[in-house]
Amino acid sequence: MSAPEQSELQSLDLIIRNGIVVNAESMGQQDVGIKDGVIVAVGQIDTPAAEIVDASGCFVAPGAIDVHTHFHHWVSYVGSHNADDYDTGTQAAASGGITTVINYAFQEEGESLRTAVDRDLELAGTQANIDYGLHVVVTNQADTVVKEFPALAADGFTSVKVFGAVTGFQLPDAGILRVLEEAAASGILVNVHAEDGALIEHLTQSFRDRGQTGVEYLPRARPAQAEAIATRKIAEYAAFLKAPVYFVHLSTAAALDAVREVRARFDKIFVETRPVYLFLEESVYELPESEGNKFVCLPPIRSTEDSEALWEGLRLGDIDTYATDHAPWRSEQKLAEAPFWKIPAGVSNLQTSVPMLFSEGVRTGRLHPCRFVAVTSANPAKLFGMYPKKGVIAVGSDADIAVIDPGDVRVLTADQMHSKADYDPYEGYECHGWPRYVYSRGELVAERGRAISRPGRGQLIRRGPSSFDTV
Amino acid sequence: MSAPEQSELQSLDLIIRNGIVVNAESMGQQDVGIKDGVIVAVGQIDTPAAEIVDASGCFVAPGAIDVHTHFHHWVSYVGSHNADDYDTGTQAAASGGITTVINYAFQEEGESLRTAVDRDLELAGTQANIDYGLHVVVTNQADTVVKEFPALAADGFTSVKVFGAVTGFQLPDAGILRVLEEAAASGILVNVHAEDGALIEHLTQSFRDRGQTGVEYLPRARPAQAEAIATRKIAEYAAFLKAPVYFVHLSTAAALDAVREVRARFDKIFVETRPVYLFLEESVYELPESEGNKFVCLPPIRSTEDSEALWEGLRLGDIDTYATDHAPWRSEQKLAEAPFWKIPAGVSNLQTSVPMLFSEGVRTGRLHPCRFVAVTSANPAKLFGMYPKKGVIAVGSDADIAVIDPGDVRVLTADQMHSKADYDPYEGYECHGWPRYVYSRGELVAERGRAISRPGRGQLIRRGPSSFDTV
Amino acid sequence: MSAPEQSELQSLDLIIRNGIVVNAESMGQQDVGIKDGVIVAVGQIDTPAAEIVDASGCFVAPGAIDVHTHFHHWVSYVGSHNADDYDTGTQAAASGGITTVINYAFQEEGESLRTAVDRDLELAGTQANIDYGLHVVVTNQADTVVKEFPALAADGFTSVKVFGAVTGFQLPDAGILRVLEEAAASGILVNVHAEDGALIEHLTQSFRDRGQTGVEYLPRARPAQAEAIATRKIAEYAAFLKAPVYFVHLSTAAALDAVREVRARFDKIFVETRPVYLFLEESVYELPESEGNKFVCLPPIRSTEDSEALWEGLRLGDIDTYATDHAPWRSEQKLAEAPFWKIPAGVSNLQTSVPMLFSEGVRTGRLHPCRFVAVTSANPAKLFGMYPKKGVIAVGSDADIAVIDPGDVRVLTADQMHSKADYDPYEGYECHGWPRYVYSRGELVAERGRAISRPGRGQLIRRGPSSFDTV
Amino acid sequence: MSAPEQSELQSLDLIIRNGIVVNAESMGQQDVGIKDGVIVAVGQIDTPAAEIVDASGCFVAPGAIDVHTHFHHWVSYVGSHNADDYDTGTQAAASGGITTVINYAFQEEGESLRTAVDRDLELAGTQANIDYGLHVVVTNQADTVVKEFPALAADGFTSVKVFGAVTGFQLPDAGILRVLEEAAASGILVNVHAEDGALIEHLTQSFRDRGQTGVEYLPRARPAQAEAIATRKIAEYAAFLKAPVYFVHLSTAAALDAVREVRARFDKIFVETRPVYLFLEESVYELPESEGNKFVCLPPIRSTEDSEALWEGLRLGDIDTYATDHAPWRSEQKLAEAPFWKIPAGVSNLQTSVPMLFSEGVRTGRLHPCRFVAVTSANPAKLFGMYPKKGVIAVGSDADIAVIDPGDVRVLTADQMHSKADYDPYEGYECHGWPRYVYSRGELVAERGRAISRPGRGQLIRRGPSSFDTV
Repeated sequence: MSAPEQSELQSLDLIIRNGIVVNAESMGQQDVGIKDGVIVAVGQIDTPAAEIVDASGCFVAPGAIDVHTHFHHWVSYVGSHNADDYDTGTQAAASGGITTVINYAFQEEGESLRTAVDRDLELAGTQANIDYGLHVVVTNQADTVVKEFPALAADGFTSVKVFGAVTGFQLPDAGILRVLEEAAASGILVNVHAEDGALIEHLTQSFRDRGQTGVEYLPRARPAQAEAIATRKIAEYAAFLKAPVYFVHLSTAAALDAVREVRARFDKIFVETRPVYLFLEESVYELPESEGNKFVCLPPIRSTEDSEALWEGLRLGDIDTYATDHAPWRSEQKLAEAPFWKIPAGVSNLQTSVPMLFSEGVRTGRLHPCRFVAVTSANPAKLFGMYPKKGVIAVGSDADIAVIDPGDVRVLTADQMHSKADYDPYEGYECHGWPRYVYSRGELVAERGRAISRPGRGQLIRRGPSSFDTV
Repeated sequence: MSAPEQSELQSLDLIIRNGIVVNAESMGQQDVGIKDGVIVAVGQIDTPAAEIVDASGCFVAPGAIDVHTHFHHWVSYVGSHNADDYDTGTQAAASGGITTVINYAFQEEGESLRTAVDRDLELAGTQANIDYGLHVVVTNQADTVVKEFPALAADGFTSVKVFGAVTGFQLPDAGILRVLEEAAASGILVNVHAEDGALIEHLTQSFRDRGQTGVEYLPRARPAQAEAIATRKIAEYAAFLKAPVYFVHLSTAAALDAVREVRARFDKIFVETRPVYLFLEESVYELPESEGNKFVCLPPIRSTEDSEALWEGLRLGDIDTYATDHAPWRSEQKLAEAPFWKIPAGVSNLQTSVPMLFSEGVRTGRLHPCRFVAVTSANPAKLFGMYPKKGVIAVGSDADIAVIDPGDVRVLTADQMHSKADYDPYEGYECHGWPRYVYSRGELVAERGRAISRPGRGQLIRRGPSSFDTV
Repeated sequence: MSAPEQSELQSLDLIIRNGIVVNAESMGQQDVGIKDGVIVAVGQIDTPAAEIVDASGCFVAPGAIDVHTHFHHWVSYVGSHNADDYDTGTQAAASGGITTVINYAFQEEGESLRTAVDRDLELAGTQANIDYGLHVVVTNQADTVVKEFPALAADGFTSVKVFGAVTGFQLPDAGILRVLEEAAASGILVNVHAEDGALIEHLTQSFRDRGQTGVEYLPRARPAQAEAIATRKIAEYAAFLKAPVYFVHLSTAAALDAVREVRARFDKIFVETRPVYLFLEESVYELPESEGNKFVCLPPIRSTEDSEALWEGLRLGDIDTYATDHAPWRSEQKLAEAPFWKIPAGVSNLQTSVPMLFSEGVRTGRLHPCRFVAVTSANPAKLFGMYPKKGVIAVGSDADIAVIDPGDVRVLTADQMHSKADYDPYEGYECHGWPRYVYSRGELVAERGRAISRPGRGQLIRRGPSSFDTV
Repeated sequence: MSAPEQSELQSLDLIIRNGIVVNAESMGQQDVGIKDGVIVAVGQIDTPAAEIVDASGCFVAPGAIDVHTHFHHWVSYVGSHNADDYDTGTQAAASGGITTVINYAFQEEGESLRTAVDRDLELAGTQANIDYGLHVVVTNQADTVVKEFPALAADGFTSVKVFGAVTGFQLPDAGILRVLEEAAASGILVNVHAEDGALIEHLTQSFRDRGQTGVEYLPRARPAQAEAIATRKIAEYAAFLKAPVYFVHLSTAAALDAVREVRARFDKIFVETRPVYLFLEESVYELPESEGNKFVCLPPIRSTEDSEALWEGLRLGDIDTYATDHAPWRSEQKLAEAPFWKIPAGVSNLQTSVPMLFSEGVRTGRLHPCRFVAVTSANPAKLFGMYPKKGVIAVGSDADIAVIDPGDVRVLTADQMHSKADYDPYEGYECHGWPRYVYSRGELVAERGRAISRPGRGQLIRRGPSSFDTV
């Protein structure tokens, strides 16, 4: 760890003292010195500072980066946007220790990717409380829009997404191949929602024909095999084309096995998982009185065996990142009398994501603190072109820091949440550990679970190409 | 974690406050309350106490248990005992965070096992600074001495050792089988030094015939295969007889693979490894001017590939325990002009063992803090019949505690060491993390690397049968 | 083996004496007695007979069954039918030891499957020299035509085919799923041409864009991965739906590995391979002067590593059947100046298929004679609902028999062939072993490589459901 | 196959006409021409000959080579030699299609290996009906006798044997290592009886202590693990020393797995199996009235799972050779009231070995005819330095030929046997296929199961080094 030079430390803004600084590849007791929003010293710091915060007994981690959020997302079959905008969404994030998000901008029928990006930029510019980037989702006209890739990348939007399933968003295989090949040539990382659309359509139609429309049929209509089939096929496409690929919200042991096998031949295949697959299990869909609707996610929540496999993947490095797919809804939207294929998908998760991973992972011995930082911060930063500006506590990096108090024990309830969703999927969970202080570029944006920020202070992060050297 | 009852906390002797309490299966910020040498409270403690120690920024771990030491060990071809007795040895242990040792008592030609035990008990009784147990080594007359097993076990000596190699100690396979079977029936765990004696003798003789007697031939005369062959053979014996077995100081990837394969059929096979195999590598035997002699160990120090495999084994749970095989010598004994097979084996290691595992393992992200406690304390306690008296921070357990300061950085030198060995194999290593306070039954026995105890305060631990439920 | 009863043998038509009778599960020297087109005795036969044939030194095998032929097949981008009709095609078959074929009838745009079947039945009825069945290819309107399945099956057409690739024939995944599910319910076995159409289209377009249109680009536009991806996807569909599936002309090690993995979870997955993948290798596409065009097949001819894997699959039972995909063309059609994606696909192969497998497989020790019979006759009969009428030399079975002379050595040339193709892909090959006599229902239809039959004597075999118990 | 030159064929002694000639790597109909005891032509032969034999419908194979026989073998705890001498033993061999044997000469306490060899040479010289070689068994003084290896090898005795178990013969591991190393240096192949002596002694003693002395305890006292442990240990020794090794009479799936694993690192590890492990199974030891005694073999007869694994090994090439370990006894010797560890070991098997492998292997499709020749003749010839003089039907090779009639069906009974054993372990087996003619160097030595030879005509084969290129 670098010894701070005396000259640059003459007048520090802030010292975080005596905490255990955790990065993806080391941990140890250190002080952290901050000036002008940047980390300027890590080590034993004796310089005077405007403010000194005692972090004894706390872990001092780089702020988490959630690369999978949906703010202000329009869903046509619901006829509305989901519950959070960039303001409430980023407040929720900050209060849970997240200091950067990457939100998805969706291409609408016939429009350019740039149009989709600009629409979200306008919202985010005035609303965001923390820094943010954008991915853009290619939903149609792949042949045409790939021509936009070089300009988008040059402008700092170095990732796109395609859907292998989900009506309205699904791109045919021909489009996926086109996007993979052109994105690789432009330094753009392709995010993939990998489920086999044909199999899901076939099964959904079968249940529909039999009048089996309740939410309890959701997991049967979107089985593990649908994910495994699509994951393997697209991983093979990527390997053949030598085009990097990133699988969002991987949920099953079978899909993870597919990745492992193909990755032995082509190593630029990356995997994200998501809290619901670690902390919940599929029996939620059997809850009485349509309560299961509240847990509708795509892919659906899986078995405990799948959950175990994902924990193992996080621990061993087969899974690179952890992100929420935060997509909040109000109960009335979830509990409407819709068949399972029309229930709005997703849950609110930004505020609880990082603390719960700490509580269930680090505290129990399942996840080393360094590995916790790897999947919540360092790897997302590397894969999405923000490292080492983000993702690490090091001299010269942005002072995005979460001071996590392992002794802060609280029982989760919806009314603690900043999200406009009116229920929480983890209601009643006893969470051990929570960020006491969260800094964004040196500025305190949350304290003990409450955001204390202002809309519009967040900045757009224009991202570079992926560095791929995940740990 | 249990809430302390008010009545029993009226007058605490000691509270260790604000540290991160780490057990093998959980970690979190807690206070620890101690009275009469026993832990009486874990949680947030508001009771008054005679003494309150601030452990902010420190890990509060159960004291380490080193189940493999050699104090006052006579080696006939050296013509002397090794360098430490129970006093200096246990001072070294305490100063490095170890609060219990199990030493080996060797059966001499023709004597009963009990005689061997009593010889060491007499020494330990007046010299030990911390608690201790004894294993006894069966070196001859296996058919006869197995009759002593029930009485030894009843008296608290629930482990024996056999050697598959090493002239003077080696038991023939017939003896090993006998010991395995009878030990299993008596609730005694058999420790095995697994190298193939025949292959080693054959190779040693070949080198000797060619006049190749320098220490650089040691690793070639005791190759990885010699360990793998013996480990597999004895693991298969154990599996066939359904007799639990514990392999001491496993040193190679090949032997660990053998264990994994046989363990799939019989799960009571346990594995210990040792610091030298994690922190050093075989090129030490190529050092000029016989410096390599100082690193002679049996088995010898191995390749970096083997080292990597052992770290992986510690991380994943294939290796259960970590112990030193502390066997200290003075330089003049090591550097005498002996052929490689007559150089006294072993190094001093008790003082540095636990801090270095913390520094190389926990700090770098290779080993979760919980896993660190598992291999240094909880698993040894379980396997050797001392759990939960030892091996855990819990209400009712002995107050054997190491308060580890991750910010204590020091460069290791021989003159810091309590051992009477006059050199240290890790001379110059920069160690991050060291126990600030070490308590044995609530009594401070070491502080910041110096023992502050008195000979004779250590107590014999009469051990029960192995519980086998390692983590 | 059954001892013939005296009464039924009073007046045999034919005895084949002293040959080594080979079935899929046994071989041994036996006489075979035939009456009225049926085998009535197997063993030592002393009854008088109208004719006695000496088969000393010969293997007496059940006539081969080639379940993959294309007679009179219209190809729109060629603008003509291929070279053989049912007459010349079945003459070629008979002269090579094949006594039953199953030809593909193609559904044309908008027509019913029955219409397609009837079109081919009309041709076959007057032309076929040996017995025949029909598969029908579902090329469009899967949702509608699946309703025809029960009637087709009841009428003896118990197999259909779908294409995962090939412009004009390719069915979307939704259609394949529909066909798999409905066929399983109707006792129909689904044959699949498994290549990934999207990947092939993508690559073909890329080569086209770069002006790389020569036949040497064919294997690069239809790589092994395209087959492996589609094979695995459709095998997974089949396994999920529990719908039996049969992969035609599997050509690569990677696809065979995919089958092995999925088959471990669902065993009704069957595999056919084809002579070109065993006897030729991909360098044929590098031949000068467009000679490579003559070898265009879909999938293309592969590497020697793939070939070795297929031999291994035949030997170990991972591959169930061996069939030609006989699709003959005249040189001028092959050598026209077409880009690689418009060269008519396929080669003439019916006459040489079985003798070459004998020569390269049985004679060299690669394939046991029983295994040779398994893949050429018993397994095709079982899978396609003709066993034990066809596929075995046993009392009661049709007297479809090939008497193979292992000492008949000949060099292959196009002018020996019955096919109207004017070249032969194996020109110059020295073939060891050829059927001396070929009997169809007791009638001699070929002798020493020449058909001596008459058009129209062949009968339609109305087939039952698959028995699945392949060996 | 070579075309015979006219000049050398002017006056053939014998033509074997119209048979299917089977070698290890090819089969096909050929004539075989013989002159002066040597094969001089293979192909279509039109030359006149003194005798022409019609082999229509027969397989013409190189005479089998049984490299594991015990003639005139003294067993001290029986107090007699076993039942056959070189005369009756080689008659039995010839009548079953075997034209060469290698018998074991045992070193007695304190004598030189040469003395042991000379003792057997004297007997064989006047008694053998077919050609023979000798292995010599090293039973003691390994350090001394290895000095004899170069001279023995130079004299044509290029194989020795060591026992890992069996009281009286067992060599300690040190001796085995010495023999392996020195044999490798002298071009001698080491045959190993691999069972773990220590485990067997331990178990035998346990049964003995409990009074469990009946033959039903034999398999429990010599379990599969005892073979697997010793096989792996000695295979590892061989791999480490790079010394070729040959495991005799391998009997278990576990031992074969051990060989496969080690062979991946060192390929000069060879495996023999034996008829009793293929055709019988362990329930024979449960037969009433001590009938089980008749089946005592070392290792004992195993489970059907083991048997299946051995068939698979023969088929796939993991097992290189097939030999009998022919060790015949009279019933009264077997049925004496001995505890299981004193029942004389072994059964008579030379006459039935090859026909039964043909009947159970070739006829059923389990073993390709070429593979049958590989394990019975070509591989033994290669491994034991006799190829291509023996082991192949080729111009220049000895005319050692078995003309096997697949239609010769017979029920086995003891009174058909040449052996002086008075019972047969396969009594009542219906065997399909038997050698009609057996030639040794062109001379007819057996016809339809009866030897027609004379003692003393057999010649000693002085063998060269192993060629190792088994198939």
